[in-house]
Amino acid sequence: MKKLAVGIDIGGTNILLGFVNEKGEILDRISWKTASFALAEEWVTLACDFILEKLHKYPNVIFRGVGIGAPNGNVYSGSIEHAPNMPWKGTVPLAQMFESRLSSKSVLTNDANAAALGEMLFGAAKNCRHFIYITLGTGLGSGIVVDGKLVYGSDGFAGEIGHVVLFPNGRPCGCGRNGCVETYCSATGLKTTYAEIRQKKNLPPIPHADAKYIYQLAVNGDKEAIQAFELTADWLGLALANSVAYTSPEKIILFGGLTQAGDLLLNPVKLSFEKNLLHNYKNKVTITSSSLTECDAAILGAASLLLSM
Amino acid sequence: MKKLAVGIDIGGTNILLGFVNEKGEILDRISWKTASFALAEEWVTLACDFILEKLHKYPNVIFRGVGIGAPNGNVYSGSIEHAPNMPWKGTVPLAQMFESRLSSKSVLTNDANAAALGEMLFGAAKNCRHFIYITLGTGLGSGIVVDGKLVYGSDGFAGEIGHVVLFPNGRPCGCGRNGCVETYCSATGLKTTYAEIRQKKNLPPIPHADAKYIYQLAVNGDKEAIQAFELTADWLGLALANSVAYTSPEKIILFGGLTQAGDLLLNPVKLSFEKNLLHNYKNKVTITSSSLTECDAAILGAASLLLSM
Repeated sequence: MKKLAVGIDIGGTNILLGFVNEKGEILDRISWKTASFALAEEWVTLACDFILEKLHKYPNVIFRGVGIGAPNGNVYSGSIEHAPNMPWKGTVPLAQMFESRLSSKSVLTNDANAAALGEMLFGAAKNCRHFIYITLGTGLGSGIVVDGKLVYGSDGFAGEIGHVVLFPNGRPCGCGRNGCVETYCSATGLKTTYAEIRQKKNLPPIPHADAKYIYQLAVNGDKEAIQAFELTADWLGLALANSVAYTSPEKIILFGGLTQAGDLLLNPVKLSFEKNLLHNYKNKVTITSSSLTECDAAILGAASLLLSM
Repeated sequence: MKKLAVGIDIGGTNILLGFVNEKGEILDRISWKTASFALAEEWVTLACDFILEKLHKYPNVIFRGVGIGAPNGNVYSGSIEHAPNMPWKGTVPLAQMFESRLSSKSVLTNDANAAALGEMLFGAAKNCRHFIYITLGTGLGSGIVVDGKLVYGSDGFAGEIGHVVLFPNGRPCGCGRNGCVETYCSATGLKTTYAEIRQKKNLPPIPHADAKYIYQLAVNGDKEAIQAFELTADWLGLALANSVAYTSPEKIILFGGLTQAGDLLLNPVKLSFEKNLLHNYKNKVTITSSSLTECDAAILGAASLLLSM
């Protein structure tokens, strides 16, 4: 019998849910605005109703359960733990809530880990035993795979490359520390870098210049925008070269909004990466973009938590 | 029947060999000066003669084979690959040489990985599933254990924390790059730091001031020596805090010459480490010294490669 799982991607803005089969096809989808639910319970009830209703459509399958990717998701506790950008505060035991309502297995982990698993089952990391997955959005998330398994670590919070200090005493980070990779290598980092370059040249600030806007400027030949991308790529190349010294992956896969800049970002990242690699690792590690579309990857990744079991 | 293995530690100066039983007792030992052997074959012949001769003393054991820890040792190829401080140049397929001469299994890995495994079987990492092992000698070596297994990565060279860049464009490193952790956090790093502090204060250089000498000065109240230890500890604490964001270990175990400084190094390292940790990890990770003596650890570690199988 064929296997089926539900994948749920929870973000600060949207919640996406889909039924996923073994081929990585998304069969039924639904989405909600996260802010519509003051309490997690309200949303869980709606989600379970949807799942139970649709399950009737698939009588001859083994339903593996509900996989969830969420910010600050902890695989060991099955809970979202103190996620800063969520309306649901404190510890939210989502996996347990789904298990008790559906009598099916539920696994929850952080969004980057889930996406890494999705990429391993259905995307650019197929047949890859050692890779690092980097999500470049507002911040920088990461999932690390060693010997075909996600590294969760002793507490479920392994893989926070965005919060490795790249420049000691550098830019202030949302985490309360300074110089974290994500303050340089993310959409937010790019924005800061662009503003800093303009300031140094005594050019007036452009407050609405977000990553997309800076990308357009760069494509149209704006010097400061091009320089901002070059610096971001330089720094990301260094941060990734440092990461290789931990787990020596075959691949690094980049995912998320900022990768929409394509070769404008990817080519200089590759150059900086090779330049900064320890000789042992040179010309061994491929940097590539995700082969999944952004909306699908999150659902596929979450469903992979159960389909890969 | 009881198990027995041979552990061999190969260094630029000495080669140590011992028979090790399951309790972690070293039964027979021998050592050589590495420089006495222009070719690896010459030494392998002597080592095999010793092993075969002594094996007769243990008739009722299962001999598991020969474990080897060596600089630039690669577990996948069983070879020493281009080790900079060894008389044997190029690629030396030591594991294969032992296997063909002894008809027993032989496993080779880098010295820090071997020591990490020894610590897991017989030392401070017993029953520990997630830890990072740091050897603080002339350089900084490391072994990373995830879920009870050494991380070797795609090419066998995972775990080179000494060559993560701590300060971009920092001190020149023997690897040809700049700002590597080991240029700051090692016996060599301490020496450089002490010299830099004296220079800044216009004090005359002390060319013979090595790590031991600087330690003695610090114990006797020398301000610059104390400051050198404080800075080294600050930097090591930061480097270790960064490492936690990759694999989220329960423990970090420090080993090697520089740890003989005891609390003079360990206490400020712990302070800097906690200060620099991302909030997720605070008050969860123990930093401790190895519980094995330096000479034994290397042999036990190498033998563990086979005893742990």
